[in-house]
Amino acid sequence: MDTFERLESEVRSYCRCFPVIFDTAQGCYLTDTDGNRYLDFFSGAGALNYGHNNEQMKARLLEYILRDGITHGLDMATVAKKRFLDKFNDVILKPRNLPYKVQFPGPTGTNAVESALKLARNITGRHNVLSFTNAFHGMTLGSLSVSGNFMKREAAGLVLTHSIRMPYCKYLGKDAETIEYIDRFLRDNGSGVDLPAAIIVETIQAEGGVNVASVEWLQDLEQICRQHELLLILDDIQAGCGRTGPFFSFEKAGIYPDMVCLAKSISGYGLPMALTLIKPELDQWKPGEHNGTFRGNNHAFITATEALNYWETDELSSETQRKGEKIVRSLHRLRKQHPESIREIRGRGLMQAIQFTEEDMAQTASQEAFRRGLLIETSGASGSVLKLLPPLTVSDEELDEGLQIIWEATAEILSRKVSLAAH
Amino acid sequence: MDTFERLESEVRSYCRCFPVIFDTAQGCYLTDTDGNRYLDFFSGAGALNYGHNNEQMKARLLEYILRDGITHGLDMATVAKKRFLDKFNDVILKPRNLPYKVQFPGPTGTNAVESALKLARNITGRHNVLSFTNAFHGMTLGSLSVSGNFMKREAAGLVLTHSIRMPYCKYLGKDAETIEYIDRFLRDNGSGVDLPAAIIVETIQAEGGVNVASVEWLQDLEQICRQHELLLILDDIQAGCGRTGPFFSFEKAGIYPDMVCLAKSISGYGLPMALTLIKPELDQWKPGEHNGTFRGNNHAFITATEALNYWETDELSSETQRKGEKIVRSLHRLRKQHPESIREIRGRGLMQAIQFTEEDMAQTASQEAFRRGLLIETSGASGSVLKLLPPLTVSDEELDEGLQIIWEATAEILSRKVSLAAH
Amino acid sequence: MDTFERLESEVRSYCRCFPVIFDTAQGCYLTDTDGNRYLDFFSGAGALNYGHNNEQMKARLLEYILRDGITHGLDMATVAKKRFLDKFNDVILKPRNLPYKVQFPGPTGTNAVESALKLARNITGRHNVLSFTNAFHGMTLGSLSVSGNFMKREAAGLVLTHSIRMPYCKYLGKDAETIEYIDRFLRDNGSGVDLPAAIIVETIQAEGGVNVASVEWLQDLEQICRQHELLLILDDIQAGCGRTGPFFSFEKAGIYPDMVCLAKSISGYGLPMALTLIKPELDQWKPGEHNGTFRGNNHAFITATEALNYWETDELSSETQRKGEKIVRSLHRLRKQHPESIREIRGRGLMQAIQFTEEDMAQTASQEAFRRGLLIETSGASGSVLKLLPPLTVSDEELDEGLQIIWEATAEILSRKVSLAAH
Amino acid sequence: MDTFERLESEVRSYCRCFPVIFDTAQGCYLTDTDGNRYLDFFSGAGALNYGHNNEQMKARLLEYILRDGITHGLDMATVAKKRFLDKFNDVILKPRNLPYKVQFPGPTGTNAVESALKLARNITGRHNVLSFTNAFHGMTLGSLSVSGNFMKREAAGLVLTHSIRMPYCKYLGKDAETIEYIDRFLRDNGSGVDLPAAIIVETIQAEGGVNVASVEWLQDLEQICRQHELLLILDDIQAGCGRTGPFFSFEKAGIYPDMVCLAKSISGYGLPMALTLIKPELDQWKPGEHNGTFRGNNHAFITATEALNYWETDELSSETQRKGEKIVRSLHRLRKQHPESIREIRGRGLMQAIQFTEEDMAQTASQEAFRRGLLIETSGASGSVLKLLPPLTVSDEELDEGLQIIWEATAEILSRKVSLAAH
Repeated sequence: MDTFERLESEVRSYCRCFPVIFDTAQGCYLTDTDGNRYLDFFSGAGALNYGHNNEQMKARLLEYILRDGITHGLDMATVAKKRFLDKFNDVILKPRNLPYKVQFPGPTGTNAVESALKLARNITGRHNVLSFTNAFHGMTLGSLSVSGNFMKREAAGLVLTHSIRMPYCKYLGKDAETIEYIDRFLRDNGSGVDLPAAIIVETIQAEGGVNVASVEWLQDLEQICRQHELLLILDDIQAGCGRTGPFFSFEKAGIYPDMVCLAKSISGYGLPMALTLIKPELDQWKPGEHNGTFRGNNHAFITATEALNYWETDELSSETQRKGEKIVRSLHRLRKQHPESIREIRGRGLMQAIQFTEEDMAQTASQEAFRRGLLIETSGASGSVLKLLPPLTVSDEELDEGLQIIWEATAEILSRKVSLAAH
Repeated sequence: MDTFERLESEVRSYCRCFPVIFDTAQGCYLTDTDGNRYLDFFSGAGALNYGHNNEQMKARLLEYILRDGITHGLDMATVAKKRFLDKFNDVILKPRNLPYKVQFPGPTGTNAVESALKLARNITGRHNVLSFTNAFHGMTLGSLSVSGNFMKREAAGLVLTHSIRMPYCKYLGKDAETIEYIDRFLRDNGSGVDLPAAIIVETIQAEGGVNVASVEWLQDLEQICRQHELLLILDDIQAGCGRTGPFFSFEKAGIYPDMVCLAKSISGYGLPMALTLIKPELDQWKPGEHNGTFRGNNHAFITATEALNYWETDELSSETQRKGEKIVRSLHRLRKQHPESIREIRGRGLMQAIQFTEEDMAQTASQEAFRRGLLIETSGASGSVLKLLPPLTVSDEELDEGLQIIWEATAEILSRKVSLAAH
Repeated sequence: MDTFERLESEVRSYCRCFPVIFDTAQGCYLTDTDGNRYLDFFSGAGALNYGHNNEQMKARLLEYILRDGITHGLDMATVAKKRFLDKFNDVILKPRNLPYKVQFPGPTGTNAVESALKLARNITGRHNVLSFTNAFHGMTLGSLSVSGNFMKREAAGLVLTHSIRMPYCKYLGKDAETIEYIDRFLRDNGSGVDLPAAIIVETIQAEGGVNVASVEWLQDLEQICRQHELLLILDDIQAGCGRTGPFFSFEKAGIYPDMVCLAKSISGYGLPMALTLIKPELDQWKPGEHNGTFRGNNHAFITATEALNYWETDELSSETQRKGEKIVRSLHRLRKQHPESIREIRGRGLMQAIQFTEEDMAQTASQEAFRRGLLIETSGASGSVLKLLPPLTVSDEELDEGLQIIWEATAEILSRKVSLAAH
Repeated sequence: MDTFERLESEVRSYCRCFPVIFDTAQGCYLTDTDGNRYLDFFSGAGALNYGHNNEQMKARLLEYILRDGITHGLDMATVAKKRFLDKFNDVILKPRNLPYKVQFPGPTGTNAVESALKLARNITGRHNVLSFTNAFHGMTLGSLSVSGNFMKREAAGLVLTHSIRMPYCKYLGKDAETIEYIDRFLRDNGSGVDLPAAIIVETIQAEGGVNVASVEWLQDLEQICRQHELLLILDDIQAGCGRTGPFFSFEKAGIYPDMVCLAKSISGYGLPMALTLIKPELDQWKPGEHNGTFRGNNHAFITATEALNYWETDELSSETQRKGEKIVRSLHRLRKQHPESIREIRGRGLMQAIQFTEEDMAQTASQEAFRRGLLIETSGASGSVLKLLPPLTVSDEELDEGLQIIWEATAEILSRKVSLAAH
């Protein structure tokens, strides 16, 4: 690890939690330079929904490289891009009756968010964007302004403006109204809250602590947008691409957001790629108003097209729900064993979380799990949430193995705690 | 092309100038779906300095994929990343006595710029950044604020702040002082120009019209930074990676910027990758203050490591200079033939430009060149500059072929002009 | 009125509601050029707490002018200023155990607010200020940013930033918690609400609809400030100088704000004057950091000093409370007569208000009252609140006369409404 | 002075330079509590162009107070305001063919500037305002953003934005072009300087160092505004009301600014009053969009109306020019005596300045002059400029007396300097 300490910036973080050098990976497993295998319940922070080095995608990618398929295409028309667009339309958009136009905004999630924010401001002529407590939308200045995490906001080195912060679903308590609250501010000519261009929202705040918005809340939020003529931007970067079951996380709510941001697992293979989906009537971009050198990452288009095969049937979606419920059952049992240390189990599909009662517990559990061969991360500003994010292609055996380690790690850290308290 | 018109956002631009569907590419050539070949003097806007699908890099990439090398690694330690870091240090940093720490800020140029801006603001506690007329640094909100292009700025949909704009080298005329001018504003307690955190600069403004800063100007600029305790951020995204001859475009000036932004050709193969280089004493990031899902694009590390082989000797650098001079000679002859229509030839190494006297000429020349099988782009806000950006690995024959087309295209559009004027 | 229409800007407002030309004034009455007298329940929007052209103050002012007392003194030491400072300290500050330093920030309320905001930001190094729904703090850019009224905010012509908006006492309903709500945002590292420099608050939102903060709420707010190390700025411009009974409107709550803004009735005579009171340990201004040509308006110091005589006993304070209660009783009876049209009676001391149920009612009532010889204004963004603001020196007979007109005007407009509805 | 030290904020400044307590004043003289008289070449920073307690104005004011003329009128129509408006139109606007609408924006200069900035932004829909090096426009947030002084800007405690800073006439050297420079930035689509709403300018930068714009420069600036459709806001707060000779300082240039800000000497008597003059077609305010409690300071209207008598003939104007020239002759002779210590004599009419060669000289000279009974102030961010600002009504004898003291004080401080150097 000396190379990293000497040469890489202090900003690096995950390599400090998982201090080994990874070499190869396949499916749900990573292997380090010493040959140790690690079960992956982290999945590249949601970028590896189909596992590592998925065989079908790999085959297509190798073929493409071997035949000198164009690699870097800016926003020029290529065969690989055309195939992706057609198939994305046929397999995802058309069947869901979501006639979005597709923008390739640069291959990272924050690019997708930045272009959605720009377009919303341009169309409405308004400058502020309403965002939520504990939101996470990215690290470039525009996305950071609508994100909630204090440590990351402070790192901007300047005051983040043009964002109106409102409480997310259940932020003020399980039964506390938040939609009416927002509506009150927007209706009142004296509230001092200027009408925003848009509302940007995640259906599940993955980085913010796995906070799950209810279906009704999302529907009410869409209503608010319609009543006040705000655009609704849905950031489905981590919760989309099947993570919660359906391809889009908002399908269950039956809403039709004005824009949708996708990234992470859209390429399927972990290659950089992002999309901004835009209602056709809102596609008011002028040519070249937003660009970026790597928005035509054709390797990613190849694997992304292959990944869409998973969505030609309902199988992946229903399996994700089934496995998600399996996790929930297991974690609820775990909670019953440690009622004083586990406050809540929450999530949807294959994004599930354990909310511990104390700040350091999730972090300690993650370390303990890693020692036992499981990669798993925490979430939320206080670090008390352990987030389960296995590949959607995880087998039942792998799931059981991972849950077993989580049980053991939890037992270990809580017993340690008890023994500490006993002294 | 119907797929793109139906499904892709109106924001697409290059595909309108070059309206064919590209399929494969090799070295300096692209091939479209009809089998037509195009000589590439555009090089992915500078992302393909080593040509398309470079054979050595391709071989390494295929091997890596076949052995299931880890693809997506966030900021975890991997074998591929370690090798890149070590080799980048050995081949690039050490020999040049530039002991930078390396940040992987997310795999696009604008990510590299955003993190440099953040860090500069954080370290100094100041908020503004001094940037230049006709600068281009990227399309996310922070980078856009320091960019000059009006059309792109306006697309932000809000007022871009925290940027102090100053005239670039020669902006006010060949002999007009700009450094003294800047110094005057910074020294004067009544100027109303608050002391900035940093100055961000390109040595050649590639997108802004191929404006070349003189060596003395860059040295004076570094002096200004030292005197006023400003950080110097050098955006070497397009001019770096050997484009002007040496690996870094600022080597000739002998300066040591506080931070350097690299992207585009750093991966060598056109794969998304970006670096922010930081003086060790300025690497004051706290872990995780800046992150991003795709900052560990290991495919790119593999090709980037292979690309560094080109820098083990001086050959590429000297060849780039030789070929650049060849272009210059040819273009100066061309200018002699059309003194009324070509105002200036300028550039450095293999970034050269023809400044026409009228606004539409470069655009028309580009179209005419494309009709003759050459991909070449314009530059600058007014579109009067034709930018030559061939791969550094271009052969003399390919160079001659491209120059020949440029001569013909220029003759064609200027004769058309004359004949129009004659009517 | 033709002069005003031809020569004065369209921005003029009150002269449209009260379209006569006023000539002289004395005590509670104004007289127009036709000799008509108007009872004044508006009191210069709170600037005439001691009535028009108060005899004692007038005498002192005339003497001062006759002896060529210095009129305009910038911030130089003058006899008039010295006397004011000493007496303000002796009569107001010392007895209340409020050892504030006194700043003369320029002679309008918004100057007092702007300097408080500056100082708070400077001291804390933080940039945002927390302000409330329906707040009104002034019309210059800094004060406007923390004000709530949409029409006035929009007139800024730019996006108002650096303000965090929170719900005022009872904004979300009579029993809804707002302090806990604020605390939740400030405590949570993921809320996206950055820690502000200060909270700015009115104890009664006079312009915002006569919204009254409870004593407990103010106490809790002070607690919040202490816990999070925020400065508490109390804008007592309209509610201070005895309007609610005690000299400072916050005395009842027993709090000790970090800064207090005074203006309007501080000169006593309607002359421009404003103060920013600052806790001694927070008086961290450097000489000249905030200035203004008219901050030494010595005529105002003369009348202000005389006005302080009213505060040497408790009489004015207790009379204000007694008369306030008299108004409240009368208005509650009025409400009983029109339960469907009057929603609420609220206020404190001699700032009382009728909240009608419909938007135009207060405006119509004001016009009807003016026709009957009473000057009275509306309040709040929707214009449904009629605000009673008689001079504190109003006699019981004058009070009765005014209330009588309000009864008649209300009856008239409501009967008109009924008759309209009947058609 | 103990009262001030104990009770007044540290922000006070002039009282530190002139540490006596002033009591009365008449014409060009102030008297302190010890009976010492001081000749006033400071004139309330330009608020006392007609001297202290001008007899005619005093008479009118006393009459008005005695007959209970209305004192505080908000923006209601009053007899005093009507008379002022009519006379201002008859004596000032009509004869100069300047058909402005008159706004009473609140009685301080910064209020006049803030409302001009608001209106300009509203009308154009643009947010930035172009302002100049060493400009001074006021201390509230909007005015401060367009001011140049670093110490005062820093006191804002936040980053001042929405202002584009350009070099004032001669800022870059006597012969250096600044208008072309500005035009270059505004014409160029790639300059990064977004088109502003307006340009705000002083014809002489009084606080900024008595920098005098040439007539041609002002004319060219008006042209720039017309070509780029920017509004021209002329801040005539200190240079207007006859200070430079004609009533408006811009009359000589023959320009017709879109808005003019007046304050300081507009009331004539040193009473708080300010005006924003607006071209009729630009008077697009909606009623009440900008307001302020003290915008109807009727005492000031009375003295302001009387002050207009001075403008019924050319006498004051020509006398001001004559006396100005007298000062200039004297100061040029002074400079000849001290060529190494006095760099330049500059100014217009009765605003004249000595630019010393070293930073502390003007401050020392001011102190020395005060010791000899002359009140005179410095100007500019570095404090090397001594600014002569006698009342326009100064007699030749008083002028001679003041100049004599300036000669003596200068000789004294420079001889002290020599003697220091000799040691």
